[in-house]
Amino acid sequence: MYYLGIDLGGTNIAAGIVNEEGRILARKTVPTEASRGEDAVIMRMADAARALTEEAGIPLSDIVSVGVGSPGAIDSAAGVVVSACNLPFSNTPLAARLASLLGRPVKLENDANAAAWAEAVAGAARGSKDNVMVTLGTGVGGGIVIGGRLYGGYNGYAGEFGHMIIRDGGETCACGQSGCLEAYASATALIRETRRAAEGDRQSLLWSCAEAEGTFSGKTAFAAAAQGDATAKAVIDRYVSDLSLGMINLIRIFQPEVIVVGGGIARAGDALIAPLRKQLSGYISGKKATRIEAASLGDDAGIVGAALLGMMEE
Amino acid sequence: MYYLGIDLGGTNIAAGIVNEEGRILARKTVPTEASRGEDAVIMRMADAARALTEEAGIPLSDIVSVGVGSPGAIDSAAGVVVSACNLPFSNTPLAARLASLLGRPVKLENDANAAAWAEAVAGAARGSKDNVMVTLGTGVGGGIVIGGRLYGGYNGYAGEFGHMIIRDGGETCACGQSGCLEAYASATALIRETRRAAEGDRQSLLWSCAEAEGTFSGKTAFAAAAQGDATAKAVIDRYVSDLSLGMINLIRIFQPEVIVVGGGIARAGDALIAPLRKQLSGYISGKKATRIEAASLGDDAGIVGAALLGMMEE
Repeated sequence: MYYLGIDLGGTNIAAGIVNEEGRILARKTVPTEASRGEDAVIMRMADAARALTEEAGIPLSDIVSVGVGSPGAIDSAAGVVVSACNLPFSNTPLAARLASLLGRPVKLENDANAAAWAEAVAGAARGSKDNVMVTLGTGVGGGIVIGGRLYGGYNGYAGEFGHMIIRDGGETCACGQSGCLEAYASATALIRETRRAAEGDRQSLLWSCAEAEGTFSGKTAFAAAAQGDATAKAVIDRYVSDLSLGMINLIRIFQPEVIVVGGGIARAGDALIAPLRKQLSGYISGKKATRIEAASLGDDAGIVGAALLGMMEE
Repeated sequence: MYYLGIDLGGTNIAAGIVNEEGRILARKTVPTEASRGEDAVIMRMADAARALTEEAGIPLSDIVSVGVGSPGAIDSAAGVVVSACNLPFSNTPLAARLASLLGRPVKLENDANAAAWAEAVAGAARGSKDNVMVTLGTGVGGGIVIGGRLYGGYNGYAGEFGHMIIRDGGETCACGQSGCLEAYASATALIRETRRAAEGDRQSLLWSCAEAEGTFSGKTAFAAAAQGDATAKAVIDRYVSDLSLGMINLIRIFQPEVIVVGGGIARAGDALIAPLRKQLSGYISGKKATRIEAASLGDDAGIVGAALLGMMEE
């Protein structure tokens, strides 16, 4: 069984042919060229899918279904991109249009949900029925898998873990609220705190690590902490402590079998996950306790999750 | 179709025969006599169920199934009361024991989940597939209905909305964490704040309202505010504002069709729900937005929810 997944971004369209185990058998990336407008982008997606099947020697007719993971506000039931910041889509019936171009059924999901689905089916939460994924990137996103299906809520926008208020009256969030998890646990927040800490300690290795990378990033504090820098360690301790507040809430609310931690910051791997587990030890010990796992599919989660949308029970 | 529901409490066993619309056709309440121990309590439950069917003239064989809502930690899949504060149960296979005494299938749930199920099937959230219930009582509890089924998580303890952290570093909660929703939105918290406010304003009508009731309660502030007392109004404003933080988080996370607000404090009805809706207006407007509704079944939710457990798809 072959599935085709498209990870749609403002810059690139990444497509892949995926088997039912979630392995990518062939892939192709083309620029989105978003400035050329709605029709052109949809055409490019169809062309990329067609070219990929040709290159892989797998006819389109052998593809069970096509899945698309898109940023923005998605009505997955209707297959519509309601709005998306970096794409020329507005109430665009993307699934139907792509289906008519390709002659295959097309499913559409929000990209964070697609990534959560990938990890649930073929990644860090494989084998569990109830799991959630927290994505620590520029913002903080999430996805919810319940009873072996993605849960989108009444309107498809469920899982906005980043805008859960954990410290009312705290840091202002991009959404306008104060004290959102995102204002503490996003890469943006970690970079802000890394910079603040570096400015308070001119001797810190944070400076040389940032210089080596060319800028302060979500990796800087981990790099300096790995070299024993105390200021960097304090930044990470505080980041983990703040992130754990959101994790406690997710455990209290969902008692999932697994919480998958993904996104750019989760690439730190054990340097993040080990102290996080320690911080949460009171909540994740005992019988049938939640496991905390780093995402295992990395950048592939977008393609894999989109492709495997076709494996979700209706 | 008849279902029998038992709302088990530390003081009383309340049983009812319920039709598939959630209407209680007959009911019976007997003292739990918890001090007499496990076997005696289970026997009393069976006796109450049998006596109820006799009084109602509905033979036990016409009862589709028996449901029990119990306080404490419940393993509903196994039908076991793991532990419960005011009951002589510890890893008690209550469902199996009651089933063998009554000769009917028995389902067991946590009482907060049973109440949420009642509101979902026959109460304020009737007709919606995805809804959550927040219970504002001595503590703050919750129940989650997803895809038309109760969601218990990996271990059955999901829905602990009261122990979601909304104000890290804030009021200490009974659970040991600081800043839990329960520390602000429980009746206990409202009474604490009512008392604090009254002590700061000797002229407040809070004093005469408390005197009329005999004590400060969860109703005092609503009663004084209804008479125009500014100090009482400020207590309620702050209560609603704090409660709304938890509600925002539930909306962001679940985007449910309905959030049902139940428990003793929700008996204030519109005096609570109207300002709560106003406070949440930015989150509950627009297409397919969450509705906020007061629980409609009151004390009957326990019996009705337990009974209708038999209507949940496996």
